[in-house]
Amino acid sequence: MTADPSSRPARRGRPGYDLESLLAVAVDLFNERGYDGTSMEDLSRKLGITKSAIYHHVSSKDDLLRLAVDRALDSLFDVVAEVETMPGRAIERLEALVRGSVAVLAEQLPYVTLLLRVRGNTDVERAALARRREFDRLVADLVNEAEAEGDVRPDIDPNVTARLLFGLVNSLIEWYRPDRGTSSSQLADAVCKITFDGMRIRSAPRQAGHQG
Amino acid sequence: MTADPSSRPARRGRPGYDLESLLAVAVDLFNERGYDGTSMEDLSRKLGITKSAIYHHVSSKDDLLRLAVDRALDSLFDVVAEVETMPGRAIERLEALVRGSVAVLAEQLPYVTLLLRVRGNTDVERAALARRREFDRLVADLVNEAEAEGDVRPDIDPNVTARLLFGLVNSLIEWYRPDRGTSSSQLADAVCKITFDGMRIRSAPRQAGHQG
Repeated sequence: MTADPSSRPARRGRPGYDLESLLAVAVDLFNERGYDGTSMEDLSRKLGITKSAIYHHVSSKDDLLRLAVDRALDSLFDVVAEVETMPGRAIERLEALVRGSVAVLAEQLPYVTLLLRVRGNTDVERAALARRREFDRLVADLVNEAEAEGDVRPDIDPNVTARLLFGLVNSLIEWYRPDRGTSSSQLADAVCKITFDGMRIRSAPRQAGHQG
Repeated sequence: MTADPSSRPARRGRPGYDLESLLAVAVDLFNERGYDGTSMEDLSRKLGITKSAIYHHVSSKDDLLRLAVDRALDSLFDVVAEVETMPGRAIERLEALVRGSVAVLAEQLPYVTLLLRVRGNTDVERAALARRREFDRLVADLVNEAEAEGDVRPDIDPNVTARLLFGLVNSLIEWYRPDRGTSSSQLADAVCKITFDGMRIRSAPRQAGHQG
């Protein structure tokens, strides 16, 4: 769990941890015990350095949380920005957003996990929730657009479709571990196959009412 | 949040709370603050009764957790037992299991929420996780069987399909609130449409390789 501080030169001339490795340990600890349940004292014990050595890098526990959730959010909004420049149909942009989000989740699993567990008790948490809601709105807009273009089934409220889709993506944090055989792109394929095309095989013509 | 103790006669001759209403308040508090972050002191303050009045009903905080998660698990295994008696194809039993699980989740939202957040720090939590794993195995077996019967796409590892399917179901606790317009059976319909048939409309014959 603990980063190996000897393997890279410390920044800012401090022995032990640079901000990056300190943040990684803090995020693991927050995920393990909950943000509210972790004190700077706990963190200093885990790192084996004094609290004042931590305060050399960040001004508060909140600061660590902000750095961590902003990293995940910035990456997700980078995907949004990329997707928004794509030409073509909304359903293709939606699929690209799902694939990009799965990739961010896999690459930054502890950061995304922390983000998705934020409850809104502090300003930092409320700001993170506001950005999450903005992301969710963008997803719902894309689903709406894809439905208007005739590509997404109209028999489910687009807001519900959007929530189910990203509910599935977000649930990956509960079980997906990148080191256990399934690559992030295989995972994205599986997620898109299930949600866009379904897991049922239709060998015969489909029943009336199911075909679009 | 607080149950109204005056609206029903207390069991066991105690004024204030019966076990049922006490449990409901405890589960809400555990979900709000985390199980580890909630003390019997917190609970006694929330209920407005002494700790010894709580110990009249249960012997420990663990006892409350066990009662709560067992309620959710017993309901989920009732669905399993019912599904296992169904004749017909595995994919139909799988769909019935999804629908039944969504219904349990909607009816017992706080209890299922608590169950899904259990981390495994105590014997009660480890026992709950073991029953969850057993449930997950049953889901994976059904997906395997449905794939062998030619009803489920074979191009995704059945264990991954099972995890994605119930990942989606479990993610409902993050946003679904039964009192906000979408009924539990509408929700189950939406979940099954997305996961079994996909959200994409296919008006023309599908591309080669997609058809089963």
